[in-house]
This record gives sequence, C-alpha cells and structure tokens, in this order.
Amino acid sequence: MSLGLGMGAIRAAARRIAPHIHRTPVFRSRSLDAMANAELFFKCENLQRTGSFKIRGAANAVLSLSDEEAARGVATHSSGNHGAALACAARLRGIAAYIVVPSNAPEVKKRAIADFGGAITFCEPTLAAREEAIRKILAETGAVLIHPYNDERIITGQATAALELLEEIPDLDALLAPVSGGGLLSGTAIAAKALQPQIAVIGCEPAGADDAYRSLAAGRIMPMDNPQTIADGLRASLCPLTFGILRQHVDRVVLVSEDEIVEGMRLLWERLKLVVEPSGAVAASAALFGKLGPGAFDGGADKSDGKGAGLPRPDKSGEAARRAPRLGIILSGGNVDLARLPFR
Amino acid sequence: MSLGLGMGAIRAAARRIAPHIHRTPVFRSRSLDAMANAELFFKCENLQRTGSFKIRGAANAVLSLSDEEAARGVATHSSGNHGAALACAARLRGIAAYIVVPSNAPEVKKRAIADFGGAITFCEPTLAAREEAIRKILAETGAVLIHPYNDERIITGQATAALELLEEIPDLDALLAPVSGGGLLSGTAIAAKALQPQIAVIGCEPAGADDAYRSLAAGRIMPMDNPQTIADGLRASLCPLTFGILRQHVDRVVLVSEDEIVEGMRLLWERLKLVVEPSGAVAASAALFGKLGPGAFDGGADKSDGKGAGLPRPDKSGEAARRAPRLGIILSGGNVDLARLPFR
Repeated sequence: MSLGLGMGAIRAAARRIAPHIHRTPVFRSRSLDAMANAELFFKCENLQRTGSFKIRGAANAVLSLSDEEAARGVATHSSGNHGAALACAARLRGIAAYIVVPSNAPEVKKRAIADFGGAITFCEPTLAAREEAIRKILAETGAVLIHPYNDERIITGQATAALELLEEIPDLDALLAPVSGGGLLSGTAIAAKALQPQIAVIGCEPAGADDAYRSLAAGRIMPMDNPQTIADGLRASLCPLTFGILRQHVDRVVLVSEDEIVEGMRLLWERLKLVVEPSGAVAASAALFGKLGPGAFDGGADKSDGKGAGLPRPDKSGEAARRAPRLGIILSGGNVDLARLPFR
Repeated sequence: MSLGLGMGAIRAAARRIAPHIHRTPVFRSRSLDAMANAELFFKCENLQRTGSFKIRGAANAVLSLSDEEAARGVATHSSGNHGAALACAARLRGIAAYIVVPSNAPEVKKRAIADFGGAITFCEPTLAAREEAIRKILAETGAVLIHPYNDERIITGQATAALELLEEIPDLDALLAPVSGGGLLSGTAIAAKALQPQIAVIGCEPAGADDAYRSLAAGRIMPMDNPQTIADGLRASLCPLTFGILRQHVDRVVLVSEDEIVEGMRLLWERLKLVVEPSGAVAASAALFGKLGPGAFDGGADKSDGKGAGLPRPDKSGEAARRAPRLGIILSGGNVDLARLPFR
C-alpha cells in the first residue's frame, strides 16, 4: 500500500473535508434486526450532502489540488453521484467542473449535477463511449481528471465514512459496503482493517454486475461492458488500484439478485423511513436475505484455506459467540427518481 | 386550562414515556430553506417509534392507567397511526388493544396495528359507523377507551414533540403542526406558548378537510362527515376539548391544496431523503408554498384586531427583523403505502 492510502492520509482527509460534509447518523431498526438475525447499524450516507458518500472523495480530491491545478477546473465521468459530488466540490473551491454522464443515468442525478453548476456532456452507456468523451473534454479544457475511483485521494475520502462509523460503533463483527468501481469498498476496507483487524469486510454486488465477484475469484480483473442492474450506481468495473486493495483487504464479495435489491430497498423505506437508492440498498439486502454465508464474520482468519470458519467464531468466548453478529452497513446514497419507483 | 394540561403534566409525560420512545432528530435543508425564504427546522416524527408522533400520547395514556384499568385492556378508533401506537403501547404494558379502523385506511397502517398485536375491527369511513363500532366493542370487552385526541393524557403526550424541539432550537419565530382532531396541535400550542410566549403557533390543514379552519372562523365546532384529502391522517374533526385549546393558544390555521401536499411531500423525500406521509407533509407544504401570510410570525400580538402585524415584526430590532424567519415544522409521520404513491 502506498503512503497515500494509510490511516494518516484517511485522517487528514477527514479533517480536510469536515467543514464541508455532514457527519451522517447511524440508524437502527428492531424489525430489520429480527429479519437479519443480527444487530444492524446503518451508516446513512443517503443523508450526506449531495445525497451520497461521493462528496467525501470528491471534496478531498478537489481540496487537495494545488492552486495552479485547481485553476484549470476538474472533469470526470460518472453515472451521477460522483458527478454531482464533483460539481459540488468544485463550487466549494470556485472552479469549473466538466462531467461526462451516460444517457441512461437517472434524471434526478443529471439535475443535481446541473444544479451544482456542473457542465454536462452526455455519452452512450458504454466504457468506450465514456472514455472517448472524457478524452475529448480533457483535451479541450485542460481540466484535471478526477476519476471516480482510480485515485488515492478519492479512496481516502470515501474511507472517512467507515472511520466515522467505527468511531461511533467500535465493536462490529463485519462491515458491508456496495462495490462498483471499488472506491468506497477500498477505502472502507483500509480503514476498517487498520482500526479493527479482526473485522470482516464484505463487498456487496448486484448479480447482474458481478465483475468484482468474478475478478476476485479469477485473480485478475474481469471487466463488464454492459452490466444489467437497477442499481445504476454499481455498473462500473474495478481498476488495477482498487482490485489490488480489494484482494488484500476484503474478505469476500457476495451477490444479490434484482428482486432482493428492490425488496431490500422497500424494507429500508418502510422501516427506516429513509429514501435509499437501489445501489444504496445492496449491502442491506445482502444482510437481510442471508447472503453472508459461513465464515462471513471471521475477518481475521486465513482466507487462503478455503474453509471459512463460520459462526460461532472460534476465537471468541462462548457468550460472545452466541450473541447476534453486529453488522455495519453503508447506505451509500439516496438519489432516486421518485416518479419511476420499482415498488408494486 | 385544567391542571392536567400544563407544563408540569407535559414534563411528567416526557419523563414517563422517555424509556419507550425515540428522541427524534431535527433535520435541515439548504435548498428547502431557499424555497421557503426561511430557516426550516424539521422535527422528524416520521422517525418516531411506530412511524408517527402518536406513540407519545398513546404511551402516556396507557402508562397512566391504574393496574385495575389496564387489566381491562384499551380500545380506540383510528385511521391508523393512533391505532398502531395504542397497540404498541398496550404491548409495552402487556395488555389487550382493540382498534376500530375505517375500511379506507392505508394497508401499511392496518398491517402495523396487526403487527403490534392489536385486534382490528373494520368500519365504514363515517363518523356514525365509527362511533357505533367503538360503542359495541367497549360494551363487549369492558376495555378503557383511549380517544385519539379528546383526552388530556393524549394531548400532554403529543406536546412532548414540541417540548423536545424547543429545547433543541429555542429561538423559533413560529411552530407549524398539522391539525386533524387537534391533539397534536393542542399539545404543541400549550407547550410552545408556555416555553416561549412570543412564538406563533400555526395549524396546517388540507383545504379538503378544513373543519378546524372553519370552526375557528365561526367560533363554534363545524364538523365534517366526509372530508376529501390524500392526507389520510387528517380526516377527523375537532372536539370541544381541542377546539377550546386551539381558540386560546393557536394563532391561525392555514390551508393547503392537494397538489401542494403532494408536491411538499415529494420535496421532503427528494431533499431530506425522508419518507413522510401526506399528513406529515402538510405543515412543510404550508411553509414551502407561502401559506403563512402576513402576521404569521407575530404570535404575541392581539389576534382580535384583524390586521396582522406582518414582517418585519415591530417588537424586534432592525437586524432581527431583517433575518429570515426561523420555523419549526413537525413532520408528523411516515407511514405510507409504497405501492400507491402519488408521484408522477
């Protein structure tokens, strides 16, 4: 791990962005605990400024730029939340933001980018079209690329959500976060393992966009060009930086179906009274629908033996082993088109 | 005002129910403040246990019963939230709850009553059918009637939401709450005027269920038998107890249209990421759509002169008069059928 990705960098990011972001609350629900047979601690990044955790990384990156870099403006490609966050962060610093957005991004996310003063360029929802569009913008404007996850400043910024959660709830057995390009999960894993080495860190991914699951199983990056999932924020693929971090620090990646994402989202809305977007519900769905499997809470065990220790954990006393596992769950965002909801 | 309705009773209620309810958070939104030209402080009773403020009054009433009374069980009629709250409060004390529910109540509210172990009897959605049904149940079971608002224990319980809000945000210019039977608004007004005599207390009512507005204008109770509004929790009419309190302590009642209720609800969901039911959005809609009118923040003025003091308030310094008004808004509940939302 480079020096830019340790706890020192994460704590520096936390101090840098603190004046500009919300310290989001942790929500509980008796009825969801009963469904999951666990104690669930929901870190409400849907209540974060710009409606997702993405402002953490974007603000950290923009506030880390030299004055000379900042003067050129910033650019990125984003399915929505990183774009809105970067536009918001750019506005904080009074600089321009150029955002490439796939044409199928939700209206609410496109509108948020525009509301923060970001200049939008639309592209087809493919990797090739996106890269062509961003290349053109960088050439035309000279702006600094702030990649949504292939960037240490972004990863250390995203890590501050887990840092806050573990400061507030220090004795979690596992921490669950959604995985797309891997920026949030990388930061979450680095912070969690540094603060609490025995914790299990579990990535949660739609089965229809399972590149992280397949990449970790194969031991090499397996990108997807056309993922199919309602979780519009989870359609990106790992990059070498995040793949390396996930291999080192993440215990496992689990998959949830489209029906489970929608039902998990519905349960969060009904029981927590929180608007959570599909991507934001994926980690909760994994906990609610029994996706964690044996060994899920055994983050300190040797992962290479292929056995999985299962519950009860052998390194805990009898009493501790019998209690319900305590799971931290990052609700990553809440930006959803209210006129196009999947509930029936 | 009887001895049962002063600040002493309200503080006793707060102590009595504190172990059983949530101290709900106060939410803010930059964008909603800008729309309202005011500083808005949202008291999130949608995040309260049972999904509405109603548990405050119900728990206070049930916990105030003698053991002999409690052993008979409790009964009520309710469009939903009071029923669920009474069932929950009864379960806290290990006693039976019999709930009469109009057939047109939302499914989610009926299910909540059943989930808390309440015994449901359905009736037609009219005053006459409801009273006939409750009379029959009381005769059959011997249960103690806990009326949803014509009860001092209920009113003092509901008053604890305003008490918490004013403890946390002490310098509000006005406090807005929805009005139906008047229990919440009565408790809100008693607490607010006792703690801060200059505050304006404003009841907010759907134009399609405007009995409180018309009753206060006429100086006598003008009940409605068939109110038409999406705000299913605001279809009841004032009783002599609440009418008397509102006449004495409430500065005005303002009306909002059905479209304004839906749009206010949509804005709360989109900007606060909170699930708020139509009834819970009515007070926010009044603030967001300019319904407060001149004199709205002049709670201490003589209300009988018919003029309205307007802004800037004459009793404040120039600086204070120029600042945006600070409005407390009670988001009363969040129980809504997600499969039947009014957004387009």
